[in-house]
Formats: sequence, structure tokens, C-alpha cells
Amino acid sequence: MSRPAIDARSFRTALGSFATGVTVITTRAADGTAVGLTANSFNSVSLEPPMVLWSLSRSAKSMPVFEQAEYFAVHVLAADQETLSTRFARSGGDKFAHLALESGIANLPLLSGCAARFQCRTSFRHDGGDHLIFVGEVLEFDSTERAPLIYHAGQYALSARKGGLGKPRSARMAGTFSEDHLGYLLSRANQQFYRPVRQQVHALGLTDEGYSLLCLLTLRHAMTPQEAMSLMGQSANAAAALLADMGDMGLIARKEGTPPRYHLTDKGWDVTLHLMAASKAREADVLNVLGEVDTFALKTLLLRLVREHGADQPDLWAEPEE
Amino acid sequence: MSRPAIDARSFRTALGSFATGVTVITTRAADGTAVGLTANSFNSVSLEPPMVLWSLSRSAKSMPVFEQAEYFAVHVLAADQETLSTRFARSGGDKFAHLALESGIANLPLLSGCAARFQCRTSFRHDGGDHLIFVGEVLEFDSTERAPLIYHAGQYALSARKGGLGKPRSARMAGTFSEDHLGYLLSRANQQFYRPVRQQVHALGLTDEGYSLLCLLTLRHAMTPQEAMSLMGQSANAAAALLADMGDMGLIARKEGTPPRYHLTDKGWDVTLHLMAASKAREADVLNVLGEVDTFALKTLLLRLVREHGADQPDLWAEPEE
Repeated sequence: MSRPAIDARSFRTALGSFATGVTVITTRAADGTAVGLTANSFNSVSLEPPMVLWSLSRSAKSMPVFEQAEYFAVHVLAADQETLSTRFARSGGDKFAHLALESGIANLPLLSGCAARFQCRTSFRHDGGDHLIFVGEVLEFDSTERAPLIYHAGQYALSARKGGLGKPRSARMAGTFSEDHLGYLLSRANQQFYRPVRQQVHALGLTDEGYSLLCLLTLRHAMTPQEAMSLMGQSANAAAALLADMGDMGLIARKEGTPPRYHLTDKGWDVTLHLMAASKAREADVLNVLGEVDTFALKTLLLRLVREHGADQPDLWAEPEE
Repeated sequence: MSRPAIDARSFRTALGSFATGVTVITTRAADGTAVGLTANSFNSVSLEPPMVLWSLSRSAKSMPVFEQAEYFAVHVLAADQETLSTRFARSGGDKFAHLALESGIANLPLLSGCAARFQCRTSFRHDGGDHLIFVGEVLEFDSTERAPLIYHAGQYALSARKGGLGKPRSARMAGTFSEDHLGYLLSRANQQFYRPVRQQVHALGLTDEGYSLLCLLTLRHAMTPQEAMSLMGQSANAAAALLADMGDMGLIARKEGTPPRYHLTDKGWDVTLHLMAASKAREADVLNVLGEVDTFALKTLLLRLVREHGADQPDLWAEPEE
């Protein structure tokens, strides 16, 4: 029975719906040159003996080297190693330039900072159509709990733990918020996070706005009243009153000029670093509760939200205009 | 050279650091019985001819069936198909009971609602240690853009897009915040999200705390001053002043009793639903900017943060005590 030919493009798209981690596979050519490439065709195969597999296009430039190689190393990339993935995915050039390499079995070139590494001896090379399937016995391996880099639908992605969370509770009346309303979640998460820091802020006689101003002054070493007003989203009067209060407390000082500029005093720096340390302790706390993978995903998504949904609002990190 | 035996448990953990999608593989036994199992050992192999692979333990109960089967189907599961994954991962029982099946090539049992499906003819069965590697030529396939179910480190996960986001900007001085400090991100995201709602809140003559109180009263239809104080994290005086103000505005009314309780008036309900609609419009906005997959991941992570990192703080959704 003859079937219509499969459209290569839609086949690739369909394959892309299967998410995978990203690996870099390395080996040494007979002349000792380090060779490597990015592959997401990796997978586990056998537990006894421990074996993994990956596949390589028969037409790949590095095929002759891998066909000869007795050993290869698989590096499972961590979420922050996207540049390594890109570097080893391109063809040609010295992919290993300026990378700090470790040396593995039979001098295998090993990369650092990965989620896991497997050093293998080639057991089988199997027919896989226009690819060759390499099955390797794992001789040595190491792993960490780093968040993994994920490839899905042609894009890099992160993973976020799904299980173990009960359903969000529903709204009690039509039109009201349910527990997964984003506005509620952001406000509540912010309030919870800030609560212990806030206690210290208030104990020092500062207001929440005062604390924000101190934080801003670590980014912009000198700030005009106009900038304070616009970055804090305050009225001119409120900004002036806040600057005056903070000056009275000895936390900021005014440098005359046109316009005048405010900067942190030594006492202001001390207080700010002390409060920021409390906030960092709070972040470390969250890391313990959510774990590294989820914390990283949360921060990435929030950063995306802040950047992509806040383009109309002042960029606190921008270099101040002179 | 003899090497120390590999510890099976840490080997599995290391393998788990490679994230994968989740598939269900199905076929028909010679007697026509539908057979299926969950596998994450799937991967693409060849483009011409189109081929995929997966591997199965030689000791699997279904091995005799798959060894004989000329055809098999691979289903790439979507994020909401965790129960299908669990169902086909267990051993024995009728895994297909009460599932609406479609019929594929050679009567292959096909599941619905998947991210992608591949109908294959077995091309090779290769040696893979204690597993057999099945390579199949893809004869037919279909796919959708559903968010994929992911398996990582022994848990189900979601994916969140990573690409296209520049690096977080660093702290300008040791000890200060960088752009990815969680405290900054939460506070800024909350402020950005709330800004247009806040304008409406203030235009109505309400304070931010007043708006919080109105929202709370949609969850707890009648609230004592004591509850208001504790749920809002306010002092007794501040809570009393807020309740009095809101009463003066005609938004809440006091029902005498021991203790007295406050509830929303009709006007209070109108104002609250109006403001909540503005917040929901804001959420719809974020959905447009981040997309469905990322918004879902963000909300899941925030809910986890709120639940798991706020156990010491009042549960707003709990049923009020009588």
C-alpha cells in the first residue's frame, strides 16, 4: 500500500512537541582534537549495565570521529547554559575556545557547570535511518540539582514542578477573585515576602516608601527630586516630603546644584545594606521552600512579566541621564 | 581496568536530570487486545525516512506483544494528561477502560487530546542492554500546540519559555539588589499589575487598604473587627479607623452583635465587582503578553510560593470560624 510522502516540515514540528533536555556530546579525535556537538536525541536505555543513547546524522561533519571513538561524554545542560548549547550547535570553528575543560576517561573533554555528565564507552552503533544510534555504557557520571535547560517547539524553555499542589480555590461569588487570580497572587506573594523586612523597616522608623527610596539610591547614586517623583510614581509634594524626612533622619544628603541631587550618606548606606541583607535572607528562605528549579523558573517568569508588561513604566536599572 | 560498580539509585537520579516529555505507546496484541504503556524514552531519530525510537525493558510484561507487533503508536502527552500517564504507567488491569479510542493503521488504539501522535511500523529492534530499542518508521502523525507534560527529576513538570529574555542586570554595588532579586521582582510586578486598578481605587476615594478590605469581604461575608485586623495585618486602631471610614462611605454596614460584624452593602458590592473587573482585565492583558503556557506556569509557581512559604500567615480562603 503506498502512502503519501510525509511533509518534512510538519514532521519536525510534530517531533518538537516532545520536550527534551539539551546535551552536548564530546569526544577526542584520533589526533587528540576535542570534538563536540549539541544533541537533544539523548535518552536513557539500560540500567544493568548502565547505558544511554543518542543519535547523529550520518552526514554530520563529526560522524567520522564519533564512528571511530571508543569513548564519549554526554553533558546534560543546566538552564543557564543556553550559550553553550548555541555554541556547540553551530558548525565549524573551535567550539572549545576559551572554555575551561576538565579531563575525563581517556582524556575526554569535560565541560563544567552542567546538570549531569555521563562518561561512556561506545557499546553499539545501530542503524537509525539517516542517523546512527550510539549506545554507550556509562563508566562514570556525576550530577547536581541544577535546573535543566529544556528544548520544546523550537525554543529554549525551563521546567516548573507541577505535582503536589492542590487545586486553586474558586471564587465564592460570580465576578469575584478565585485563589489563582494573578492580581491576588502577586499582591499576596509580595506581602508575604516583604513582611519580615517590613518589620525591620518600621522598627527603624522608616516608611515603605522610604525603604523604596533607599533601594533606588543604590542604583542611581544621585537623584534629583524630579527623578525621585517619577521613579517612585509619587506626586511632587509627596516626593519632596519624603526627601526632607529622609534627610532629617541623616540617611540621605542634598548636594546643591541646578537641580539639587540627593545621595545616600554613610549611615544611609549602612541602613540600606542591612535591610537588603534581610531581603536576601528572605530570598534564601524561598529557595529552600521551592527548590532551585522552581525558584529559577519563578524569577524568570516574573522578570519576563516585569519587562514585557511594564514597558510603559520607568526602567529603574537604566543608566541615569546626565 | 576495573571500575567501581555504578550505584543504581544515583544513576537513576542523574538520568532524571535530563527532562523529557511523556509518551504513551500503544499497540494491538495478536488476539486484538489493546496494549499500552507510559514511556519517556522516546526520541526522534531519522528524517528520511521519518523514524522515531523508544526503548522497553526486556522484562516488561508487554515485551512479548511489542516484540511481535508490526505497528505501534506513540502519543506525546499534553500538560493536562497527567492522569493518562499515571494510568498507563501502572502494571496490569485494563488500562483502556472507559477511554474513547480512535482507530489507526492496522486498528492501532489511538488516544485523544495529545500534543502529538505518531503511527509507526517497526523497522528495527536493537540491543540496548537490559532494554530493547524499538525504531519505527512514521507512517502517519498529527500534532497540536498544546502545552506538553514534562517529566524531570522524578516529578511531573510544566515548561516555561526561556528565550528572548536578556540577562538580569547586576547589582551596582556589592550587597545591593540585582534585577533578579525576588523581593524586587515581586514588588515591581505587583506594582505594575495593580497600577491601573489603583487609579480607579483612588478615583473612588478609596485607599489601597480599603480595596483589600472590600476584596476580603467577598470571601468572608461578615467579618468581626478582630478578623479584619488579623487578616489585614493591621493594628486594632488602624483596622477600626478603616472600618469606620468604609462605613461612612456607605460601602460596608455594621450588624450589631457580640462581636459586631461588618458586611458589604449593595453599593459596596457594586464598587468591588467593578474594581475586580478592572483587575481581571489586567490579567487578560498579561495572558496576551506572556501567552497561555507561561501565564499558567507563573500562576502555578506563585500559588506554590503563597501556599508553601506563607503557612505562618492567615489563610484568606479558609472557611470563617463561627
